[in-house]
Amino acid sequence: MSQLVPDTPELSEFYKRLPDYSLAPLWTVLSSLITPVPVSRCQPAHWDYKKVRPLILESGSLITAKQAERRVLILENPGMPGESKITDSLYAGLQLILPGEVAPAHRHSQSALRFIVEGSGAYTAVDGEKTIMEEGDFVITPSWTWHDHGNDSTEPMVWLDGLDIPLVSMLDASFFEKYPDDLFPQSRPVGDALARYGSGLLPVGYEHARPTSPVFNYPFAKTRKALEQMKLADEWDPCHGLKSRFVNPVTGDYAMPTMATHMQLLPKGFESETYRSTDATVFSVAEGSGKSTVGDQIIEWQRRDTFVVPSWTEIRHFPATESYLFSFSNRPVQEKLGLWREKRGED
Amino acid sequence: MSQLVPDTPELSEFYKRLPDYSLAPLWTVLSSLITPVPVSRCQPAHWDYKKVRPLILESGSLITAKQAERRVLILENPGMPGESKITDSLYAGLQLILPGEVAPAHRHSQSALRFIVEGSGAYTAVDGEKTIMEEGDFVITPSWTWHDHGNDSTEPMVWLDGLDIPLVSMLDASFFEKYPDDLFPQSRPVGDALARYGSGLLPVGYEHARPTSPVFNYPFAKTRKALEQMKLADEWDPCHGLKSRFVNPVTGDYAMPTMATHMQLLPKGFESETYRSTDATVFSVAEGSGKSTVGDQIIEWQRRDTFVVPSWTEIRHFPATESYLFSFSNRPVQEKLGLWREKRGED
Amino acid sequence: MSQLVPDTPELSEFYKRLPDYSLAPLWTVLSSLITPVPVSRCQPAHWDYKKVRPLILESGSLITAKQAERRVLILENPGMPGESKITDSLYAGLQLILPGEVAPAHRHSQSALRFIVEGSGAYTAVDGEKTIMEEGDFVITPSWTWHDHGNDSTEPMVWLDGLDIPLVSMLDASFFEKYPDDLFPQSRPVGDALARYGSGLLPVGYEHARPTSPVFNYPFAKTRKALEQMKLADEWDPCHGLKSRFVNPVTGDYAMPTMATHMQLLPKGFESETYRSTDATVFSVAEGSGKSTVGDQIIEWQRRDTFVVPSWTEIRHFPATESYLFSFSNRPVQEKLGLWREKRGED
Amino acid sequence: MSQLVPDTPELSEFYKRLPDYSLAPLWTVLSSLITPVPVSRCQPAHWDYKKVRPLILESGSLITAKQAERRVLILENPGMPGESKITDSLYAGLQLILPGEVAPAHRHSQSALRFIVEGSGAYTAVDGEKTIMEEGDFVITPSWTWHDHGNDSTEPMVWLDGLDIPLVSMLDASFFEKYPDDLFPQSRPVGDALARYGSGLLPVGYEHARPTSPVFNYPFAKTRKALEQMKLADEWDPCHGLKSRFVNPVTGDYAMPTMATHMQLLPKGFESETYRSTDATVFSVAEGSGKSTVGDQIIEWQRRDTFVVPSWTEIRHFPATESYLFSFSNRPVQEKLGLWREKRGED
Repeated sequence: MSQLVPDTPELSEFYKRLPDYSLAPLWTVLSSLITPVPVSRCQPAHWDYKKVRPLILESGSLITAKQAERRVLILENPGMPGESKITDSLYAGLQLILPGEVAPAHRHSQSALRFIVEGSGAYTAVDGEKTIMEEGDFVITPSWTWHDHGNDSTEPMVWLDGLDIPLVSMLDASFFEKYPDDLFPQSRPVGDALARYGSGLLPVGYEHARPTSPVFNYPFAKTRKALEQMKLADEWDPCHGLKSRFVNPVTGDYAMPTMATHMQLLPKGFESETYRSTDATVFSVAEGSGKSTVGDQIIEWQRRDTFVVPSWTEIRHFPATESYLFSFSNRPVQEKLGLWREKRGED
Repeated sequence: MSQLVPDTPELSEFYKRLPDYSLAPLWTVLSSLITPVPVSRCQPAHWDYKKVRPLILESGSLITAKQAERRVLILENPGMPGESKITDSLYAGLQLILPGEVAPAHRHSQSALRFIVEGSGAYTAVDGEKTIMEEGDFVITPSWTWHDHGNDSTEPMVWLDGLDIPLVSMLDASFFEKYPDDLFPQSRPVGDALARYGSGLLPVGYEHARPTSPVFNYPFAKTRKALEQMKLADEWDPCHGLKSRFVNPVTGDYAMPTMATHMQLLPKGFESETYRSTDATVFSVAEGSGKSTVGDQIIEWQRRDTFVVPSWTEIRHFPATESYLFSFSNRPVQEKLGLWREKRGED
Repeated sequence: MSQLVPDTPELSEFYKRLPDYSLAPLWTVLSSLITPVPVSRCQPAHWDYKKVRPLILESGSLITAKQAERRVLILENPGMPGESKITDSLYAGLQLILPGEVAPAHRHSQSALRFIVEGSGAYTAVDGEKTIMEEGDFVITPSWTWHDHGNDSTEPMVWLDGLDIPLVSMLDASFFEKYPDDLFPQSRPVGDALARYGSGLLPVGYEHARPTSPVFNYPFAKTRKALEQMKLADEWDPCHGLKSRFVNPVTGDYAMPTMATHMQLLPKGFESETYRSTDATVFSVAEGSGKSTVGDQIIEWQRRDTFVVPSWTEIRHFPATESYLFSFSNRPVQEKLGLWREKRGED
Repeated sequence: MSQLVPDTPELSEFYKRLPDYSLAPLWTVLSSLITPVPVSRCQPAHWDYKKVRPLILESGSLITAKQAERRVLILENPGMPGESKITDSLYAGLQLILPGEVAPAHRHSQSALRFIVEGSGAYTAVDGEKTIMEEGDFVITPSWTWHDHGNDSTEPMVWLDGLDIPLVSMLDASFFEKYPDDLFPQSRPVGDALARYGSGLLPVGYEHARPTSPVFNYPFAKTRKALEQMKLADEWDPCHGLKSRFVNPVTGDYAMPTMATHMQLLPKGFESETYRSTDATVFSVAEGSGKSTVGDQIIEWQRRDTFVVPSWTEIRHFPATESYLFSFSNRPVQEKLGLWREKRGED
């Protein structure tokens, strides 16, 4: 759509009068608003955990979790510095919580996911139920639920935060509230939600009020065991290896309404076929190592690294060892709106 | 609706002429067609496993599983003898499979559930995947899937069959087909379906073609562990104790489209409040013992017993020991059609 | 599944002992319970309105609408006389309401449809809103809604009633209640529901509590006009001509949860291809004339006639003139339960 | 969330090192990312058609519809000049098409709505079916459907365009394609879609592939007639008068997946109660005149005017005459994501 509207003196004069009426010509900007394929400033990027970890730990010596409200280093997309975004619609950060610390209770309309990168035994509490977190666990704090984090273990814990902050900002739907105390009172035993809602059962007559899964911790131990079992069928998707999405047991939909979350097993030596989709995707390496080509870049990843693939950018995976990749994106939003596309193979 | 239409000679003469036209007056039968509350010949009934078991085993010496196609003793509701029904819409039976036997592969539009009553290690195979069955497991053979059963263990296995046979008959939608061989070929490893679909994950892009859960064994070990955990919350439904329904992970709906299946934990000494609902319900005692009042009858039940509660009949449970009750009914049908009702407490 | 289990003396003796335990062998009845294709006593049948009308009018002289509660001649399937059924799961009748009469207010869990066969200007009132009925209108009284009928016109009105009585009976879910007065009080203007819910709009924030359409009259004038317009596209389904289903505007689902309703336009001289489906179907001729082959029978139909096609029975239509056929069946029930099948063309 | 983290020299030095690693501290920006209530640069604004119309017509003398691809003056929110947005997530513009002109065929992933402001008899064609447009009509061009516009009448036509351009940009999901010819070939008669899908009927077996309504013109004549009928019930929402949403007949959902569209009748002299919601809303006055308070501004509106209400801004309507207001917003997106909120009455 290359509008080559010659810029006449009459048009120029006309354009000048429009702003006073809060008007503007469409034809001069149409080709940048509606593009033939997705166009974004979002770039492929890679955060090497070995390099980033010292900075995260340093932040722990400079500010407390409570002072910071949440002590997080944002993973800013290098194409959009200063915008607190890892993709156009999503935010990601690495959060540190030290032994004995508490990140105080609050709630917000933004949905958050946590993917545990390092440590063992810290907890997240959601609406009065704690869950103890281990590496590889996928933990949810649904929109508008009270939540706090604490670390009763003896080691630091670091996790990857994924939130829909830019999306909620664009929709002008942000609400935030602090709880009067640091900790929201606990009312249910640890493990209750997973047993009650995530074991192939739902309480009789149960009606779930919100679009997010009532299960708020999908332990890696369980996920890994399932993928190990699936391996035996020896059926591999040429683009994805063995890729499963985390599911809201009440609906079968994505575990979260705004963010898809997946765990993916790539066997050693697998070479995935070229793939692209419109959901820019953040990957976190739960296990293994290898490399991926993202557009014309090569990303060499190891356990605990994070990397991001922009919308409609070709990706191929080359795991050196058997690898588990966690990933998240805005795919459910696009699917609900009829916008999501994928393409397998090269053009 | 007690139409007291006086039976005049004119009316009598009129009635006589109608059958020739395949006509009949509504007003003489209306009150029996549309009743103020549910009216059925279905009666409360109890099958004491200690008494029934010898007959089941005797059947094993009289006919083979293969000869019988399925060697089952139907649990016939005493109010409807000869009709092969345990309630108006459902069929139940106790099926025996002896070591070394095979119940040959076939498929039918009727959905079947199996609740394992006695034995360990026999299998059901569904569409090319076997599952090994243990006591308390809830196993599904979805509508129109190839399935066979076999017993490679050294002990007899008995399970409770629940099928929607009367419902499918009324809907005139029965189809049946035998597989040319006794066994349908196995193509997937044991445990694949549960890992793939029943672990909080679904394969990316998965679209489930039928309304029945792709998980076809809900092992009692898993169900029991979940209920044990839920007990800790110490929240008891006054009518049901702790009652959960088995769920289709693809939709969050019932595991089967025509039959609800539930597992229910009643703590020792619990005395449930009066309850009634429009879905006549078949109970199988997975663990424990106690009694239930069903209408004006008292049913004393033990492990492995079966009993049935007719529609809209008051029930109360009095477990003597901690008890697990499995149950099934046509509740999903009624809910989908907007017909289901329940009533808590006495009139 | 023709089990030819030889009847040994041992088996005979065994069979005799079973009824005392409310048990019965499956293998002697299996082949009649689970049939290779649908088997029913339901037969093709035809009610010629010219022959039936005098009897309907005669009933009007023998009993009042109020005395009868509903003055209806049931269309009994000739294969199931005395069972008040037109198919295994559905009831149909022709109801007469004379000028000045009232059929008093009541409600029941059974859903009812009315298809107006003769007359103009009588009304049905549902939950406080009247609708004036004309020939060809499709009117709904949803489950458990108060409804009464009256005729303020100067001519008799006759309509075809379709109810899910046998289905609700099998599900043991019948409830019935009479309203204390003959007429339920009117609270909304005539035409409100159609405007509010059936004009491409729904009230903002509207949540519909029941599975039946809030539109309870689909006027033939509107339906006919739509089909006339659709004719211009000149796209004909080889089996159905131009067949549309009535829709619940809140969900896009069938207008009623238990019964599909369709209007079908067959152009003059059309010869439909062989078709069969598992939903036994009742047809009412809104306009036109022709014949249909149903299994090995030929039914010659005219305006206002009713005929019924059993499950899985081949049908072909041969309209002599442009014809409009209204029809209803249990298809939504079968679809919700995953049971519905159709077959186009001959075997 | 007023993080008052004192800015120490150590922190400052730390902050300086972070950008090299594409990292940034969350705690310095958290309070601007996650706000207690929605915060946006979007402002209340009003486009007086009397003032804007001359500029629109002037554009018609400066550039042809074909040259411009679409000759539109964008309604730019005064709080976000140069961003081609009327709210944070939506685009709006006024499009002119002169007699004899054609706006050539193309398709894009962005969904578009047209609300006809002035003129009669021009057409929009969608995927091979034309619809003739009149004032007050609400017309849809669904995502990725071929569409062109033309004016075979003798007068100019002006409509309000509403598109989800900013939303699709943020999701990085824009695709665009030009059709090789100016006009996409017509294959269905005018009026087919409305008859086929918008008359209380759907074709038997119809499965709709996309989330947008298959009806693509909701004529004002029909909408107005429905609202006129609804008036008789004399039930008024204190905040909205009589407000209905346009519905996708296949699902009962909004007519479009990304934009809610409503028509609202305000009776003469009505004074609405204070209302706010999180979906910033664009209003177009179909009929009548009056004023609305929007936050602390007063907007005096007349027929054909456009005005916009930002998210979470209090609005009250004071119609001077009976008025019809068309409006659109991103409400379906927020509802699907669990983010939408409203508040009735004052704080």
